[in-house]
Amino acid sequence: MKKSVYETIEKYMLSCMKDSAHDKDHVYRVMYNALDIAKAESDVDYDVLIAACLLHDIGREEQFKNPALDHAEVGGDKAYVFLTEQGFSADFAGRVKSCIVTHRFRKSRPPESIEAKILFDADKLDVTGAMGVARTLVYKGGVGDPLYSLGDDGLPSSGENDKMPSFFQEYHFKLKNLYDRFFTQKGREIAEQRRDAAKAFYDSLYGEVEKTYSSGKHLLNELID
Amino acid sequence: MKKSVYETIEKYMLSCMKDSAHDKDHVYRVMYNALDIAKAESDVDYDVLIAACLLHDIGREEQFKNPALDHAEVGGDKAYVFLTEQGFSADFAGRVKSCIVTHRFRKSRPPESIEAKILFDADKLDVTGAMGVARTLVYKGGVGDPLYSLGDDGLPSSGENDKMPSFFQEYHFKLKNLYDRFFTQKGREIAEQRRDAAKAFYDSLYGEVEKTYSSGKHLLNELID
Repeated sequence: MKKSVYETIEKYMLSCMKDSAHDKDHVYRVMYNALDIAKAESDVDYDVLIAACLLHDIGREEQFKNPALDHAEVGGDKAYVFLTEQGFSADFAGRVKSCIVTHRFRKSRPPESIEAKILFDADKLDVTGAMGVARTLVYKGGVGDPLYSLGDDGLPSSGENDKMPSFFQEYHFKLKNLYDRFFTQKGREIAEQRRDAAKAFYDSLYGEVEKTYSSGKHLLNELID
Repeated sequence: MKKSVYETIEKYMLSCMKDSAHDKDHVYRVMYNALDIAKAESDVDYDVLIAACLLHDIGREEQFKNPALDHAEVGGDKAYVFLTEQGFSADFAGRVKSCIVTHRFRKSRPPESIEAKILFDADKLDVTGAMGVARTLVYKGGVGDPLYSLGDDGLPSSGENDKMPSFFQEYHFKLKNLYDRFFTQKGREIAEQRRDAAKAFYDSLYGEVEKTYSSGKHLLNELID
């Protein structure tokens, strides 16, 4: 890809991200992960892949403003319009759009091209390991969700059967279950290398709060009459 | 402490915390940690300690609205007024106030009573280990700080010499340096047990992003001409 083309697409991506450092940094990590995965695949169209990675989340703001919208659909449409306006062929813009539309999991629309599968896996990788934990906690902070809910016994729930949103609930319902959902061998391999870090963090945090509450509540009960 | 007294103080604390689950959960963890630390000390006035733990952060909102205010000073004053209005003696209210005023570190006002030292340590414990990491990330999400800054080479900085706020910067300037700042033996022991979890998480996260960027940037450079 020509440097000027890369910079044109990058500039458009940045204009869509505005002031969100988190989203911007995520886009670069996804692109770098994708290039690493692509090395292990054959017949990858790198121009399609790079454009799709850079533009995969440009529909985020629309979904944020109207949660009924799907940022993958919106982003695919926006990317198609942008790329054709920039003089890219309808074929190229269509292939980039397909990758973007399928990067968010829906059973009805699995990623099909190798570029779409790589983008999907590269995006998922950013929810694995310590990065998945960090991004989830940052998100929870933004929306005001707690780290854990308390059970009927007043002790922190592990999250395993929780209905209310919390970090522990998200760990059990999402973070720990990602590792068999990769389309590429290399994506799965990198995810496996990161798996222990997420589990270790959850175990440490749960251990700390469980110990604090169970010991402290017992002592408090002895002091209150 | 009589149950009705405990509930009166708890109710006032909750009215000051309003809708912040994070702050509320933190208060209970600090109280439970404090009771655990207190077990290993002698001559602890548990009524003073429990009141001080419950009320230690009631000045947070004032500091949030006006960062020139110190929540420890504001909280100490609010607690004194509340407790004397509730019929507690000036001596009791003053001892609780002292604990609250010194729970935030200032060289000019170290915690002096055993209850003040225990509150200080119990509050610091909530910034150690996995909990310290989790609370920092939740906070960073709330204020919009990034996980890391990029160095001049375009690679993620470790945070060690950073000036710009980020999670990595906070780890090096605050989280990793807490462990020798405890006043009680038991506080120091619990902190030490948690230390490795914080380091392991930082190391994992830094390792993941460092690998992603260094490999990905190299591959991208080869593809852009």
